[in-house]
Parts: sequence; C-alpha cells; structure tokens
Amino acid sequence: MKVLLVFAHPEPQSLSASLRDVAIGELEAAGHDLRISDLYAMGWKAQVDRTDFPALGPGQRLLPVAASKNAFATATLTDDVKAEIEKLRWADALILQFPLWWFAMPAILKGWVDRVYAYGFAYGVGEHSDTRWGDRYGEGALAGKRAMLIVTAGGWEQHYGPRGVNGPIDDLLFPINHGILYYPGYDVLPPFVTYGADRYDAARFEMAAQHLRERMRTLETATPIPYRRQNAGDYHIPTMELRDGLEAPGASGFGLHLRASGPKK
Amino acid sequence: MKVLLVFAHPEPQSLSASLRDVAIGELEAAGHDLRISDLYAMGWKAQVDRTDFPALGPGQRLLPVAASKNAFATATLTDDVKAEIEKLRWADALILQFPLWWFAMPAILKGWVDRVYAYGFAYGVGEHSDTRWGDRYGEGALAGKRAMLIVTAGGWEQHYGPRGVNGPIDDLLFPINHGILYYPGYDVLPPFVTYGADRYDAARFEMAAQHLRERMRTLETATPIPYRRQNAGDYHIPTMELRDGLEAPGASGFGLHLRASGPKK
Repeated sequence: MKVLLVFAHPEPQSLSASLRDVAIGELEAAGHDLRISDLYAMGWKAQVDRTDFPALGPGQRLLPVAASKNAFATATLTDDVKAEIEKLRWADALILQFPLWWFAMPAILKGWVDRVYAYGFAYGVGEHSDTRWGDRYGEGALAGKRAMLIVTAGGWEQHYGPRGVNGPIDDLLFPINHGILYYPGYDVLPPFVTYGADRYDAARFEMAAQHLRERMRTLETATPIPYRRQNAGDYHIPTMELRDGLEAPGASGFGLHLRASGPKK
Repeated sequence: MKVLLVFAHPEPQSLSASLRDVAIGELEAAGHDLRISDLYAMGWKAQVDRTDFPALGPGQRLLPVAASKNAFATATLTDDVKAEIEKLRWADALILQFPLWWFAMPAILKGWVDRVYAYGFAYGVGEHSDTRWGDRYGEGALAGKRAMLIVTAGGWEQHYGPRGVNGPIDDLLFPINHGILYYPGYDVLPPFVTYGADRYDAARFEMAAQHLRERMRTLETATPIPYRRQNAGDYHIPTMELRDGLEAPGASGFGLHLRASGPKK
C-alpha cells in the first residue's frame, strides 16, 4: 500500500517524532511504500493568503472559496500545494500525526488542510440534485482510500473519557475525522491516541510503541468508523438532516452520524 | 467595558470584515474602549517553533510545554506574544471573529491561541490537590471576563442543526468555547453564527447586521453558556469525570458539561 504520513511537531527529538519513527519502521517492514510530509521540516506556510493565488489580480478581492476554485481549475495553485495534492492522490492511506494543542491540531497542520483542500478537489465536487448533495461524506476525490490520526495528548486519559471534563476524545476529534477526513471520501480508522505525553517514561513508551505497531500492521484491514454516507438515503436532501428513527437508541449530537449497526451501506 | 476583537480573515473587503465593522461601530457607539488584533494585517506568525523561545539554547530540545513555561516565567516570550497577553489582561471582553474553515478556526487564529496561551498564563496555573485541579474551566487568569465568537460559515444552517450532517454547531464550537475560552476562565457567551456566507445579498447582510448589533449591545449583560465549574464539586478529582446523576436527562458527550438547570454555582 502507498502511505502518506503528514507530521506536525516542531522538535525532531520529541515523543511525537519517536512514535512517528516507530510507525515508519513498522510500515516499511510490512513493505508499504511511504512518503512523509514533515511540515516543520518543509517550512510549510500555515496561513491562507493572497500569495496562495498568484492568478488573483492586485485589485481583486480575495474570496477564499472562489479563489481556490479558480486556482484549482486553472492549475495555478502554488507548487507546495500542488505537491501535497499529488501526494494525496498517490497515497492509498493518509496518516495525520500531531500533538493535540488546545483540543485541536497545531496551526501548521490546520494550515495544511486549509491550503491543500482546494475547491474542486476536496470540496465543491459532484452533482447537486434531488438525490445527491455533491460528492462528500463518504464520496469524493479520496474515496476508496483510508485515513487515520496519530495523536499525542498532554492530559490524563480520564479527562478525555465519556464523562471527562475535556469532553470525549472521539467527539473532540469528530471535526477532524468526519469533517476533514470523511468529507472528501476517506474511510476513517479509529484514531491512535496516547495521553500524558509530557510524563512518558521508557516503559510507557514501549507500551505505546507496541500498540502503535499493531495499528500500523492493521492499517489495511481495520474496520473504519461507521459514519453514514450522505447520499445513501439516510439524510433529507437538501437540508441534510438525518431522517427520523435511524439513530441508535439514545444517540444524539455527533453520535447520530454513526450507523446504528449492520453492514456498511 | 474594554473589548479586544481578534480578527482572522485575509480580505479587508470580505463579509467577515463588513460584519466586524458593524460590531466595531456598535461597540464604539456604546462607549466601549476597543482594541483590534487583525491577525492578517499584523502579519501574525501562525506556527509554534523555536523562534518563539529565544532563551532556548541551540542544542536544547524544544518541548513546547516546558519552553512555554520557562519563557513565561522569565519574561522571554517574543514581543508579539507579550503584546497579545497584555491585551487579554487589559480587556474585559474578548471577541474572536473568523470564518469557519473545515469546521474549525483558520490556521492563523489557531496559531494565535497556540502561541499566546502560554503555560503559567492560560494553563498550568493554580494548585493541584484533593479538592482542586488547577485554575481552569471557569477559573484562571481570565476569570471574570467575557468572551464570544463571531463566526461566518459557508454551509447551510440546517446542515449544522441538531440532526444536520456536519454535526450541531454548538458541538463543533465546543472545543473552542469550552476548551479555549472557558478553560482559562472566561464566561463564554453564545456564539454569533451566520450561515451561507458565500451567498449573501444586501437583505441578508442587513438582517445579520441587525442581529449582530443586538448581540454587541448585550455583550455586558447576556447570560453565559452554563458550563460547569471544574472545582465546584461536580467532578471527581483527579480523574475529572462528572459525578453520576448530575446531568440533565438524556445529556451525553459535550452536553454533560452544561449545568442541568438552576443558578450559576
């Protein structure tokens, strides 16, 4: 399998980097073809701004959606963005690895999403009609591929549990797993999350590394999170609200968008 | 009241900028003292990296938490970060205004949080004991102040509704409202969110502007989101899990962290 790992930690000797190397070692041992986007090492530019759209005239308003659409359609995106899009097309699996900062990805990785996810590529694709609302949420340019997060969190695991004060980790990651990965079509695997990242010792590292190796060994076979497909009948079109009665008993909020049970539609 | 508005859109002629000017006009008319951090205009640096910690030796590992703690304690944070911290201390109310990109804030604003929220200022403060787990979630350096989001979203309002495919807007914003604003102590007001931002006409703009003016008029008096205080007895310490039976009937996930009813504890 071809795997792209996008890595977002500033320190080459960090816990994140050590875990990345564990993942790389395991993926290479399994014979996968690997490419790495190490955003800090690449000097990745985080913010979306005018320089992202060289075709935009000096007096023209920067409307990010319109500018992205035009730049993608006319192949005038910047070279760094084009290269990342090419990597996403090449890869059968995408791994985003980052430390959880303020319950979200670091700015440099958010900027990778903001810039690389062009209109016409990651969104704004497909037909809008009475039966379809574009190619998104399970369909799109990256459908048929797999994606997964590797996350290091500083806090305690219980603080991210079902009743933990930070909110459940799966809900905190929903905007990424569902909104960023599932949206353009990826099958999203359950995330690998390790906690207490600032209080690691050798024994905990070895435990985490073993778990991570196992997750890398099953990258091709693990069962994705059973998010509902947008255009498969579960949602009203065009309001895109879940039809009544489909949810698992007691499900609400983000949990509505998981299939209650049964095989993948 | 002293108000800091942090603004994160690259285009001075955008809908976001027009709404910002509506908010500014209303706040000034009410006699508030106003400061603006226009991140794009300031050329704000988004990514956390070594240059944020000038005291860090060239051979020293960059551990962001430790580096932040040391830099804050020794007053060696960079001048741009120090200036923002001073503005946060000055302001009685903080407004973060941004377009919702990929269900989160733009990278440049995330980088403002990542860099300005120093250890010892926004986190890592207060005593940890059997009865307290630091000054956070309702306590902290910014307690007694108010905060509020102004958000423009590209999608349809229904797509962000209770059963909408994107997930409910309040849940999508929970990592910001609860995890970034409530964490260091702010009383968080319900967000102002406007939808369909790419399909605005004059009539819709005037409606949104009226609503926004009303929200600015009530900035000082509106009732905050009733998040639970961490150290007021609702959570087990140190696991910080909500005690059984406190939640509203049927509440789960992020909803657990709202007080079920009654006056503020």
